[in-house]
Amino acid sequence: MAFRTDIEIARDARKKPIMEIGAALGIPAEHLLPYGHDKAKVSQSFIRSLADRPDGKLILVTAINPTPAGEGKTTTTVGLGDGLNRIGKKAVICIREASLGPNFGMKGGAAGGGMAQVVPMEEMNLHFTGDFHAITSAHNLLSALIDNHIYWGNTLGIDERRVMWRRVMDMNDRALRDIVVSLGGVSNGFPRQTGFDITVASEVMAILCLSKDLEDLQKRLGDIVVAYTRDKQPIYCRDLKADGAMTVLLKDAMQPNLVQTLENNPAFVHGGPFANIAHGCNSVIATQTALKLGDYVVTEAGFGADLGAEKFFDIKCRKAGLKPAAAVIVATVRAMKMNGGVAKADLGAENVEAVKKGCPNLGRHIGNVKGFGVPVVVAINHFFSDTEAEVQAVKDYVAGQGAEAILCQHWAKGSEGIEDLARKVVSLAESGAAHFAPLYPDDMPLFQKIETIAKRIYHADAVLADKAIRDQLKAWELAGYGHLPVCMAKTQYSFSTDPNLRGAPTGHSVPVREVRLSAGAGFVVVICGEIMTMPGLPKVPSAEVIRLNDQGFVEGLF
Amino acid sequence: MAFRTDIEIARDARKKPIMEIGAALGIPAEHLLPYGHDKAKVSQSFIRSLADRPDGKLILVTAINPTPAGEGKTTTTVGLGDGLNRIGKKAVICIREASLGPNFGMKGGAAGGGMAQVVPMEEMNLHFTGDFHAITSAHNLLSALIDNHIYWGNTLGIDERRVMWRRVMDMNDRALRDIVVSLGGVSNGFPRQTGFDITVASEVMAILCLSKDLEDLQKRLGDIVVAYTRDKQPIYCRDLKADGAMTVLLKDAMQPNLVQTLENNPAFVHGGPFANIAHGCNSVIATQTALKLGDYVVTEAGFGADLGAEKFFDIKCRKAGLKPAAAVIVATVRAMKMNGGVAKADLGAENVEAVKKGCPNLGRHIGNVKGFGVPVVVAINHFFSDTEAEVQAVKDYVAGQGAEAILCQHWAKGSEGIEDLARKVVSLAESGAAHFAPLYPDDMPLFQKIETIAKRIYHADAVLADKAIRDQLKAWELAGYGHLPVCMAKTQYSFSTDPNLRGAPTGHSVPVREVRLSAGAGFVVVICGEIMTMPGLPKVPSAEVIRLNDQGFVEGLF
Repeated sequence: MAFRTDIEIARDARKKPIMEIGAALGIPAEHLLPYGHDKAKVSQSFIRSLADRPDGKLILVTAINPTPAGEGKTTTTVGLGDGLNRIGKKAVICIREASLGPNFGMKGGAAGGGMAQVVPMEEMNLHFTGDFHAITSAHNLLSALIDNHIYWGNTLGIDERRVMWRRVMDMNDRALRDIVVSLGGVSNGFPRQTGFDITVASEVMAILCLSKDLEDLQKRLGDIVVAYTRDKQPIYCRDLKADGAMTVLLKDAMQPNLVQTLENNPAFVHGGPFANIAHGCNSVIATQTALKLGDYVVTEAGFGADLGAEKFFDIKCRKAGLKPAAAVIVATVRAMKMNGGVAKADLGAENVEAVKKGCPNLGRHIGNVKGFGVPVVVAINHFFSDTEAEVQAVKDYVAGQGAEAILCQHWAKGSEGIEDLARKVVSLAESGAAHFAPLYPDDMPLFQKIETIAKRIYHADAVLADKAIRDQLKAWELAGYGHLPVCMAKTQYSFSTDPNLRGAPTGHSVPVREVRLSAGAGFVVVICGEIMTMPGLPKVPSAEVIRLNDQGFVEGLF
Repeated sequence: MAFRTDIEIARDARKKPIMEIGAALGIPAEHLLPYGHDKAKVSQSFIRSLADRPDGKLILVTAINPTPAGEGKTTTTVGLGDGLNRIGKKAVICIREASLGPNFGMKGGAAGGGMAQVVPMEEMNLHFTGDFHAITSAHNLLSALIDNHIYWGNTLGIDERRVMWRRVMDMNDRALRDIVVSLGGVSNGFPRQTGFDITVASEVMAILCLSKDLEDLQKRLGDIVVAYTRDKQPIYCRDLKADGAMTVLLKDAMQPNLVQTLENNPAFVHGGPFANIAHGCNSVIATQTALKLGDYVVTEAGFGADLGAEKFFDIKCRKAGLKPAAAVIVATVRAMKMNGGVAKADLGAENVEAVKKGCPNLGRHIGNVKGFGVPVVVAINHFFSDTEAEVQAVKDYVAGQGAEAILCQHWAKGSEGIEDLARKVVSLAESGAAHFAPLYPDDMPLFQKIETIAKRIYHADAVLADKAIRDQLKAWELAGYGHLPVCMAKTQYSFSTDPNLRGAPTGHSVPVREVRLSAGAGFVVVICGEIMTMPGLPKVPSAEVIRLNDQGFVEGLF
């Protein structure tokens, strides 16, 4: 069999009509709003009707710190969902939606890979069901209302220098990062400096992903702090009466999107907040709906476990009352080698010593996740170049950490290749071993929350922060925001804030550069290092080769 | 029966599943891509399969110059479609999509009114099937690629002062009209002044509406002139290799949207270019698809016949090879009174003399439309306050112009109230009286085209234009654009460029303020007066009251 790319495999998928996928989950046709024949949204009223049902078991798929070798976290999430269905469990997959803009810079991402994918891939990398466009519209309506309020007399007393709310676009457009608006004279308003972020960085995105229903959504939108007065009093979204109209714009976007895997198992693909300045998980409403419909729900969190799992546990699970039953940490032999100091070009050669040397990165993630009271299994996502000795080295290391590592071949074989992992996940989940608790209590002071994460998850010695930052945190505590969790924004490539520091560093410190209040989403963002909220395009953007071919297929996107 | 608003009537509609509406038109289910249960897109391959079928008859609904009294052009378009179906013709309605942004300023527009509406109204005023979002994305991708090209070395030699291509957003946001981008240092590019227009003003919108298929769309996108070099040579979209990726972004937006009337008759709602800086008609692909599927296609054009019908004939029909069989000019007794000098507050009182005095506005439109070789009937859109004597005055006047005026009560009664007009339209269309020809030939010099429209349609004495404007037109002729039609952008309220000059003025002159080349859409825009391409929000925007009510319905949008 010739090698096939992800997109070729995806195009050959024997998709079932989405109404059939929904029917198998027990969703009546009138509650499934189709978008074409292979995508559908689940109605709010159906979701409300599920409230009294028991929840299935929630499985988190997380990973080691990402390396250029690739780990396959989404591939494993999809594969595990298929694997659980294969062994007779009713499992639902919950993953994030892709952002449109970045696809025109670098090639777009599949949702999974090989034989473990969610389809339709093209649509998921283009407009999909329009959720991100709706978020863009809702965000920018608020922006327009702010400048409009100032224009018509500014009765709220907004300080034009202290408008925190920017605009968004789902496009990589560096020219919009830093702009001056309202030039051109009296009829265009009061000139001021502002900018655009990419849509996934919008607080509206984070809010949509953390809201349990439309009422909660509107309440959280109203809570957004958009600006301050000259005497530093906050102006809220609801002061501008924008929350109702924003909710109207988001009413369809709040409904989870149902698609399917290559093996015709159900997947909710919904929401896509940044994993740095936001929490990086799919929507609460999709996860909760899936828990009502399936015995098992397999979901993932952005980046490695130090960022992704920590935020999943401390933000999403805390807020939504979710109790994960088990966690899978995805690792690859290649990534262990890179953590062990091997360059990407040399990954093809067997190097058991490097694998062993890189394993402590995995080991620390195992310990961290266990620290949340969640039982762990390691999935070794198999690459054809892995040798038996290398795989065995990982297994031995993990066994030494009190866990098990299981070789998974879902990329090549689909569900058949991941049965062992599925069985292990079921045994962990049904063992009752989970006794999940967040890392810190709500009432811990904000700075101490940061220190707790830095010391217990990153294994740093100290958190460094200016007085101005500490004062800001104290001011927010006085203003009633002290109970919020913190959302760490740091490099995903290391436990530390130095992206080149692989492995399991200790003795480092975590410098906090900036803190931001996301009062609607309900967290305080702690920025440690350079965080880009509006990407740029590369010198030769993939847009140059993206086109429809003669068969009407999209070329160049993947 | 208590008075019901348009939205109340629309919500009570007994909608059929959109698949049934499509099936009645002969569209197989697999070629109808549903968006929910009441909207669908028709597949490109199905449209291609229709190529050899004969065309139905095309009926244009146009109107007198709009007045604050309201004429009901869309209502009559919808009513006539229902009326034709009622008398046994297979009729399809083709109208434009609504823009999202303006709904948050002033109350949103229904698609029709009373018993002559297209549904679902909420969706059509919100995201609908995402077409405008796709246009926004495609437009802004090109914008990002321009600045990105400059950033990475500018090998094409784009003059940053001569970038014509702005950005767009489907939002009323005056702060974005005039901005400076790329501030903040080296990594953000080269600062330059630019701005945003509202999405419906995008040339991409006009292109989508004039393209016959995806190949034509890509070719036209490639033709867009985005900037000039320092020595004034044009830089095209295809020089940036953006046309392929833009086409990919627009592939679904190019597919016509099928919805239904309150009487379950089919309507294509597709495309929505500005009626001033663009041609103001629904898409060519929707009109052509409808002509293959129906005996009759009823469509409309933006503003009064001086702008709307002229552009429909001289731009859309010329480019797409359409041959309209008849035209309906919508007038109301109230609008005749306003043209006759009555203030809006006094419209309730009978005033036959004012009606008579206002009729010459209607008379001139009748003569103009007949001048295109298209037979005309006048629809008097009935208001409850109209008296018999007033209606008779209009009928008598129109008879004197060699046409017939028919009283229509579709607003109150649906198709039953518009049977007489439907029968008259059929008799005109089947009489073979139509011998359509555009107003001017392709090879007429551009300035002479402007003069021809000004003199023959506006009945002006002269066109006034600076030497710079005349030189620009000559330069475009030398560059190979002399064959293009002109797209007039002037006030819709008068035949003249003075919005307060009602009736049928003569002896005025038409000052040309600016000309713009829309090389992709394929016309030269001639701007006569102030044209706003990015609206602002009012002091109390409707966004403040828009919200979901307890039943999940949208309140405040209508």
